[in-house]
Formats: sequence, C-alpha cells, structure tokens
Amino acid sequence: MGNNRNNATAVIVGAPEWGNKTAFAEPFNFGDLVVFNDPITLDNNLHSPPVGRAQGMYVYDQQNTYSAWLSFTFVFNSTEHKGSLNFAGADPLLNKTRDISVIGGTGDFFMARGIATLMTDSFEGDVYFRLRVDIKLYECWK
Amino acid sequence: MGNNRNNATAVIVGAPEWGNKTAFAEPFNFGDLVVFNDPITLDNNLHSPPVGRAQGMYVYDQQNTYSAWLSFTFVFNSTEHKGSLNFAGADPLLNKTRDISVIGGTGDFFMARGIATLMTDSFEGDVYFRLRVDIKLYECWK
Amino acid sequence: MGNNRNNATAVIVGAPEWGNKTAFAEPFNFGDLVVFNDPITLDNNLHSPPVGRAQGMYVYDQQNTYSAWLSFTFVFNSTEHKGSLNFAGADPLLNKTRDISVIGGTGDFFMARGIATLMTDSFEGDVYFRLRVDIKLYECWK
Repeated sequence: MGNNRNNATAVIVGAPEWGNKTAFAEPFNFGDLVVFNDPITLDNNLHSPPVGRAQGMYVYDQQNTYSAWLSFTFVFNSTEHKGSLNFAGADPLLNKTRDISVIGGTGDFFMARGIATLMTDSFEGDVYFRLRVDIKLYECWK
Repeated sequence: MGNNRNNATAVIVGAPEWGNKTAFAEPFNFGDLVVFNDPITLDNNLHSPPVGRAQGMYVYDQQNTYSAWLSFTFVFNSTEHKGSLNFAGADPLLNKTRDISVIGGTGDFFMARGIATLMTDSFEGDVYFRLRVDIKLYECWK
Repeated sequence: MGNNRNNATAVIVGAPEWGNKTAFAEPFNFGDLVVFNDPITLDNNLHSPPVGRAQGMYVYDQQNTYSAWLSFTFVFNSTEHKGSLNFAGADPLLNKTRDISVIGGTGDFFMARGIATLMTDSFEGDVYFRLRVDIKLYECWK
C-alpha cells in the first residue's frame, strides 16, 4: 500500500499515534483508516471487465481481533446498470459471512434498501484482498 | 484551509503518507479526509441568514480524477424547520449533477428517505466552494 | 487515550494539522477523528455483562462548541439478540438529548429503521464518557 503509490486504489489516511501509514498498525491494524476505490466485477476474476467501482472507507476498530467498520458506495456504470448503492455496517473479518445494511440507492437502484452479505474470497496479507458481496434488495422502487 | 485556522469551517484531518494536511495531496487530493461544518442557506448568497448547518466528512478517493465519498448531516435550526437529514453517497465532482441518498431524518424530517442532487455552484480552487443541493424526500412521516 | 494504549477501546486516528493524536485538539477537539469499539450494557453500570459492542467512528466538527458527527454500528451478541443496528447523525454534545437516525439493521434487526436518542450519562474529561441510547424502531420486519 505504502510502497505502491502509483496504482494504489486504497490508502491509509488515518492511523493511531503509534502507526505511520506506510504499514498497518499493530495489533490487528487497530486505528487504521483506509480510503478505497476498487473495481466491481461480476465474478471473482480481477481481470473481468468492471461494472462499476466500490468507493468509500473503513476503519479497523478492535485491538484483539480483525474487525472493521465500513461505509461505502457501489457506483455502477455499465450498459446494464447506472446508479449507486450505499452501504454501512460492522465487519468481523474472520467470520465466514458478515451482513451489513444497504442504506439507500440512486439511479437504477432508486430508494433501495436491503442486506449485503460479505465473504472473503481471497486474502493475500496486507497487499490484496477480494470480497464477495451478495446483495439482497427488499425495497426498490424501480 | 491550513492557513486560515481561526475561522475555518473545514479541515483536513487525514491524509495519505505523502500528504501533510496543510494543503491537499497530489494528485486529485487522493486520500485526504476533510471534516466540515458549513452554513446552509436557501439561496446561493454566502451572506444569507443560514437555516442550519451541514456537518460531516468526505474523503477524496480517486487518483485519476476528482472523486469524493460523502457522509454528512444537515442540522436545521430555523423558525420553519427543526430537525436533521442524514446523507451518504459517492460524488464524482466533475459531473454536472450527482445523486446521493437521504438515509434518514429526525425532528421535522422524522424517518425521511430520498435523493439529494448535488451541483457545484461555485468553485474557487482549494479555498472555497459552494454546493447546490436539491432534496427530494419520497418517504417522510410528518 | 494516548497514555492507555493497551486497553483502549477508542483512539484518535485523524487530527488537524495543529493536533497530535496523543491529546484532543484545541479548541473543542475540532478536527479529531476517533475510532471506537465499546461495550453495550443494558444499564449504566460499566461492569454489567455487555450484550454487544458499539463500533464505528466520530469526528468533532465545530470550533466554537462541542459538536460531533457520528456513524457507527451496534453489534448485538447475547442470548436474546443477534444482529446489528446502524446509526448516523449529528451530535451537539451539550444538548441534553440528541436524535440520530437508525439507518438499517441485520439479523434480529433485519431492515430496521428508526430514531435513537442520545443522552450523556456520565462524562469524565477526555478519558471516559458513557452515553445512554434510547432506540425506537418504527420499521422492523421481524
């Protein structure tokens, strides 16, 4: 992250007193705040054509395990979907599945609400991870 | 922002490793986190009597264009309106209009949901900008 | 906070240019961003068995009074409740009561929306405070 500035899509922008933003803080990244902007693909292949981007932030919020709190937006920009979905919730990273809230949407996802289930699809240390996100919308006006 | 501490209503509080909080990071402010508290007026005159304040934060989240992710609250405190509206969403700053979600409200805006359309009304470098916000509430219980 | 790292459940991770993360910034903590992860109890006794944890962040956003903007999640993990509630809103700390929005929920609180009223129950300088949170859910599908 700190060593890969030119094509970084995520960056530590806040860190505790004992952190330095070039690496995650110890223990368990506690206190690190990460801003990200990552491609969304319809399968788990990094090289698939993206249908949009996931933009927002998360903070690592626990000293004794990996735990994060997320708040972000999916911005869809494909021939099939234009619009956005907004998310918020807690992410106990080591659980196999974690539910967060879909708190609103715009465009094709006008007034959406629902639940998104996060699953860690791939995890390569601090450098790269991939999430699978299953979205269920229970309210959508379009 | 950094040079105008005494009456600043916005301040950079997080920045990437290569940023310094006294100026926006290069390129495209990527990684800067700004906390703000600005007056809301009913027209585009900075000196109109404010009807409330916009409070919250945004992060610049892209390396190759101006893009932000916003999360904030309008706190209304006028003879006509008391209460608050909460917002979240992605803001591709260079688009003429950008839709974000109204995710909840309190007081006169009890249980509100809807869409807010942002337009950049005025932009003077890093020092000052003014947004026009058109709010459409599709759910409001009052 | 800065002096009590080992069992800290809250930490300053962002601060303005003139702040240093080992103490709150002057004046009125303006510009400080705090990440927290605190126990939730059903009464006001710190030593009661927690029914879950409050996780998330807040920023101090005003130069002339104590004012914060909050975004966080209650994660319930007791025999009675499993699931989460997500919150967002402005918190004028010196008001006796402050309303924020419940913007979504998962598990037992599937699709919840409502209002949470915050009251400062106890406040001991910068080191410790306790909030009372009265939650009223007006939409809940379970």
